[in-house]
Amino acid sequence: MNFEIIAVGTELLLGQIVNTNAVYLSQRLSELGFNVYFQTVVGDNPDRLKEALRIASERADAVITTGGLGPTNDDLTKETVAEFCGLECVLCEESLERIKKRFNKQGSYMSENNIKQAYMPEGSIILQNNHGTASGAVVEHNDKIFIVLPGPPSEMKAMFEESVMPYLKTKTDGVIHSVTLREFGIGESQAEEKLKELMENQSNPTIAPYAKTGEVTFRLTAKAENVEKAKEMLVPLEKKVREILGDTIYGYGDNGSLQKTLCEILTEKGMKLATAESCTGGLLAKKITEISGSSVCFECGAVTYSNEQKIRLLGVKEETLKKYGAVSKQTALEMCEGIAKSANADIGIGITGIAGPGGGTDEKPVGLVYIGIYGEKVHKAFRFVFSGDRDMVRERSAMTALDMARRYALGIDFVDNSQK
Amino acid sequence: MNFEIIAVGTELLLGQIVNTNAVYLSQRLSELGFNVYFQTVVGDNPDRLKEALRIASERADAVITTGGLGPTNDDLTKETVAEFCGLECVLCEESLERIKKRFNKQGSYMSENNIKQAYMPEGSIILQNNHGTASGAVVEHNDKIFIVLPGPPSEMKAMFEESVMPYLKTKTDGVIHSVTLREFGIGESQAEEKLKELMENQSNPTIAPYAKTGEVTFRLTAKAENVEKAKEMLVPLEKKVREILGDTIYGYGDNGSLQKTLCEILTEKGMKLATAESCTGGLLAKKITEISGSSVCFECGAVTYSNEQKIRLLGVKEETLKKYGAVSKQTALEMCEGIAKSANADIGIGITGIAGPGGGTDEKPVGLVYIGIYGEKVHKAFRFVFSGDRDMVRERSAMTALDMARRYALGIDFVDNSQK
Repeated sequence: MNFEIIAVGTELLLGQIVNTNAVYLSQRLSELGFNVYFQTVVGDNPDRLKEALRIASERADAVITTGGLGPTNDDLTKETVAEFCGLECVLCEESLERIKKRFNKQGSYMSENNIKQAYMPEGSIILQNNHGTASGAVVEHNDKIFIVLPGPPSEMKAMFEESVMPYLKTKTDGVIHSVTLREFGIGESQAEEKLKELMENQSNPTIAPYAKTGEVTFRLTAKAENVEKAKEMLVPLEKKVREILGDTIYGYGDNGSLQKTLCEILTEKGMKLATAESCTGGLLAKKITEISGSSVCFECGAVTYSNEQKIRLLGVKEETLKKYGAVSKQTALEMCEGIAKSANADIGIGITGIAGPGGGTDEKPVGLVYIGIYGEKVHKAFRFVFSGDRDMVRERSAMTALDMARRYALGIDFVDNSQK
Repeated sequence: MNFEIIAVGTELLLGQIVNTNAVYLSQRLSELGFNVYFQTVVGDNPDRLKEALRIASERADAVITTGGLGPTNDDLTKETVAEFCGLECVLCEESLERIKKRFNKQGSYMSENNIKQAYMPEGSIILQNNHGTASGAVVEHNDKIFIVLPGPPSEMKAMFEESVMPYLKTKTDGVIHSVTLREFGIGESQAEEKLKELMENQSNPTIAPYAKTGEVTFRLTAKAENVEKAKEMLVPLEKKVREILGDTIYGYGDNGSLQKTLCEILTEKGMKLATAESCTGGLLAKKITEISGSSVCFECGAVTYSNEQKIRLLGVKEETLKKYGAVSKQTALEMCEGIAKSANADIGIGITGIAGPGGGTDEKPVGLVYIGIYGEKVHKAFRFVFSGDRDMVRERSAMTALDMARRYALGIDFVDNSQK
């Protein structure tokens, strides 16, 4: 069964709010095994909404609308859906009672136009709203299903979970199950090239890549009659992907960021990390401390922009700075050693580079970054030339540093994307 | 002229990412005086995209697509738009050169499929991409305009501003001119209440507020026959807004962030800043060093998560930590003094607090943050209880610290939103 989601609201067309309802509904429908082929946004205009309903009902089996169920005159979704299906809106006593009770409980005044919210398409399944005044509705018409939901996300989500899910479960012939693998170290196109054979002619299960600043997530999805069977189908596929991409796969799941994975590994191993940052200016420390509980594995960070502070806080030698410059392999090596020793940490990371846009030369271009790592078994620095603007160079530097720390803590080799 | 925005990407239909591109484009088009009547989302499927293009071109004068310009086989937007308009895709040498240069600069490998990104619809206006590989295009066909933009928001926004805006300005009758005032310190609803009279019944010029984690920007827009006239119309309005909001207006323009404003002030006054962060974990330093040229005014930062490091790096007294705790006014006072003195900086900022979700008590709840500031003429710490999740508490803390440094550097009073 194919769905289309229509969000109704002029504020969406003006860019005043983000259509998070479509994100939520798409996720839930996909989990239930339904396809969403189109999402549409239309303003509070009955003619254009009717046109959107016509197009949607021609290309989808079911249409979900969000928004336009309020008490004011420009809230016309329910009325327009009814008109489109050739139905009248009639008073729903249960809805009226519920709305009255709600106002009584709040001790506030129910305005005349709230009564409008109790008029529902005749013959529809009424969806009561436990978190707001507007009722929703399911209208079955000419083999098509129209599901009318309120706009405020909290009301919409609750109504979907309490009323729409049980209804839709009677309509589905199977389930969808997904797992997400997260990869860092090789770019999207390289990763896809490696997975090309697996991805070609895929139908069930499928692999969908999604790239974000050097990191790629792969969503593996299977459709089956129940979750157990879907999970079974994913086992050999996941195994193959892991074989092909190897230890560049660092994690699992939608929320398993690189910094979260690193914190888990360090905490498990009882290791402490300290950071010394120049061009990333605190971004690496910021990423690690985003993770709740990172205080267990993060000892301290130093942001040393000036040479003076590199000498004072990290013990970088004046001679090194003079001879090789602040952006050099030698400086990175001394930075990571300095912070690890002074903070008594198991791993020290040092980053020095030229984030741009200014400060580049032919010999040392914008994007040139040295990342050093120091520990009981390592004292190395790698050279990178990252592309992109200042933010991107900083982001890639911090992500690469996180991955280096992860690899060292796990005792696996560094990916040598560096340029010596 | 009416626009439709079509976002292309199966990840949007699966609810994996939010369509923020539509929000951005809707805002900018609305400011330029164009209407957006529909937004559509369609997957990486050429047939359905063609269908979406057909419908859009029937109901809009211009169509903007985002996404689907990547190097992989499922990236087909450009090819589909070309086919829809009956055009071939031909090699654009300029694009190919640019992409090659980009890979060369990175010293990384350009895969075969990146060449696909240089094939553009024949006769189109090519939009070069300064932040990524994919070129965009403007195709004028049968009195309709098709504008094809990349999906990654940073690339899309830059291309829109650098290339699409100048193009669209030639299509509008009259000009739109905007100025943006940036405010920090009072919330959106308070700011709006203060500006209520000015905002009521506005038509030309208009005031549009946009709120983001404690900061509010006000975009003042006038429509006139030429830029000079539009600017003239904005002068009295801007004066009124500045009178009403006073020194909570800290800046001007779309890119005039609080950290940028602070760096400009410090640089002009020849002042140096140093930071000592606990709960923000490097976020404050990261924000300052986002600004190119911040090395002139930013001396160093210390991220001291543990008590030991607060003592070692900042000279916080063990007695203070024992008696008042790490999250206390006294600790914040010693942190800012310690970092300012050891770094020999004109301003020291110290932040200590409980970002959550864990670690809160009745006496010291999640969101409790002390921010201290030290300088020749100041040694103060303020108490705040910020709402929101871990990220929000950290963000609000860092922003408030930036504003405190700005106010001290300018010699204006602190806003006392603190709770003593």
